[in-house]
Amino acid sequence: MNEFALIDRYFRRSPRGDSVRIGVGDDAAVIRPAPGTELVISVDMLVEGWHFLRDADPHRLGHKTLAVNLSDLAAMGATPRYALLAGALPNSEEAWLGEFAAGFFAIADRYGVELIGGDTTKGPRNLCVTIIGEVPQGTALTRGGAKPGDDIYVSGLLGDAALALEAMQQRTRLAPDALEVARTRLETPEPRVALGERLRDIASAALDISDGLTGDLAHILETSHVGAIIELASIPRSSALDGKLAGSTERDLALRCLLAGGDDYELCFTANRALRDRIVDISRSLDLPLTRIGEITAAQEFIVRDEHGTPLPALPRAFDHFAS
Amino acid sequence: MNEFALIDRYFRRSPRGDSVRIGVGDDAAVIRPAPGTELVISVDMLVEGWHFLRDADPHRLGHKTLAVNLSDLAAMGATPRYALLAGALPNSEEAWLGEFAAGFFAIADRYGVELIGGDTTKGPRNLCVTIIGEVPQGTALTRGGAKPGDDIYVSGLLGDAALALEAMQQRTRLAPDALEVARTRLETPEPRVALGERLRDIASAALDISDGLTGDLAHILETSHVGAIIELASIPRSSALDGKLAGSTERDLALRCLLAGGDDYELCFTANRALRDRIVDISRSLDLPLTRIGEITAAQEFIVRDEHGTPLPALPRAFDHFAS
Repeated sequence: MNEFALIDRYFRRSPRGDSVRIGVGDDAAVIRPAPGTELVISVDMLVEGWHFLRDADPHRLGHKTLAVNLSDLAAMGATPRYALLAGALPNSEEAWLGEFAAGFFAIADRYGVELIGGDTTKGPRNLCVTIIGEVPQGTALTRGGAKPGDDIYVSGLLGDAALALEAMQQRTRLAPDALEVARTRLETPEPRVALGERLRDIASAALDISDGLTGDLAHILETSHVGAIIELASIPRSSALDGKLAGSTERDLALRCLLAGGDDYELCFTANRALRDRIVDISRSLDLPLTRIGEITAAQEFIVRDEHGTPLPALPRAFDHFAS
Repeated sequence: MNEFALIDRYFRRSPRGDSVRIGVGDDAAVIRPAPGTELVISVDMLVEGWHFLRDADPHRLGHKTLAVNLSDLAAMGATPRYALLAGALPNSEEAWLGEFAAGFFAIADRYGVELIGGDTTKGPRNLCVTIIGEVPQGTALTRGGAKPGDDIYVSGLLGDAALALEAMQQRTRLAPDALEVARTRLETPEPRVALGERLRDIASAALDISDGLTGDLAHILETSHVGAIIELASIPRSSALDGKLAGSTERDLALRCLLAGGDDYELCFTANRALRDRIVDISRSLDLPLTRIGEITAAQEFIVRDEHGTPLPALPRAFDHFAS
């Protein structure tokens, strides 16, 4: 099956929204933005052997490929609308592509995302998604608005995705049920889109945690020209990770997973403390833990206090694609 | 140098247009589309070993990476506005990246394109650009409007890019000056952006020739449910290619370059014959050859007539990324 037939078979669907004037199948897509809105746009590239393994389940990979992009929109408070998918594949791999497309469209449909364009080519497997969302003018969440005295929150539980990877690579052991939970977090993360939308008029700054809490929160601190104190004991985690943190033999590994583990795709945000009740309401209505883990400071330092109130001497390093 | 420092050093520039609310450096970019406009969006992925060679000059590659995307906008009649660049690189390669960025921004600046987002990662070298342009509502050119009796045009000269590749791979020989001209066409194609804008109220259908004239024109015919007769003798080409077409020993190679050679990035468009004078005017004012090569027919056949008026028995195949 050739390139055009492949695209037709797995990726061309009729445009469903009025705003899509031209979808997949011309030189480019054409969309008509709604008056009074701004468009929020991001791109992420996933590479085999780096972001996923050669034998990764294609259905789950289809989910994750879009999920990581939706997470960027969530961090901006945007409502997802459109996606473009470019992919390099070692060969035409019809069965693989069918599974991948099924996983991709399942999450696309849940979040109302329409695929409006793409490109396929031969090459080492590589998946590149451009995601486009919408916000009312001037309401996008950024990294730059955190103020001294603001609370710092995270959604969900942190560190399980990194813990799953450690276990799958035999660097630690997990009970089968704990591994299954953690692995689901790693392979099919759920983007916090509804949370992002609810935070538009609440959060002073926000981002998604893709490279690890401390590295990502540091971006908010740099952009907002502030510091932070966070309490290790407050950072929400699974009981499996909590157990390793409490022991001594695996504490370093557990700290790394919790503070610098990649692939969490939870939101980290700051908000004025006068808004605590509204955040509790949002947490209840979304059935999603939103945990206060610390506070923004005027002093431009980043301190993580351990269970005894003692600052950690060094923070685990964030994930860096070009670290040697 | 780590990932964030690399992005900062080579790809972060201050937003210059009012319409960019947030540029590179947050989870996503935010743009405010102008009222009354539609956005035109396309993505293209270029892979080392497939779309370019390992030793390709990085400055020229930076140009071409954006040029092929601008060509898609030209085919839609859109005015370029924004780009996002995702790239996988084998390692941090600072010097390479500096050259690449210089080539990329040189053409970006010439066409008024602002880089609003990106992603860098480790992996086999792969460059993926998402391009965004603007058109007044309802004016985008598509593949679907060609009518029987319409003239068929192409811009510029066809086949030189493919001819350069044949020569570089020792399958034919070219005089040094002819090779230099052809190689420039292959490595630094010029997108026909101004032509696309001028064709908004003229062309009934349009696309860019990236996979070869016959394969690409076939997309217009299929989408418009029409046929075509084109005259081989009318298809504009360089004297180098013309010489090979006239001889017998290399005629097949020359036909393949002219009719099915990839990488031309000229526009192919159709227009009502009442508009011939206006098209001559556009050609003069842009100093760009616009050549009538044939006519759209109601019969859904695609015929290429040779120099004697005899239909070619078979058309050379278009470029197919997954052909075995």
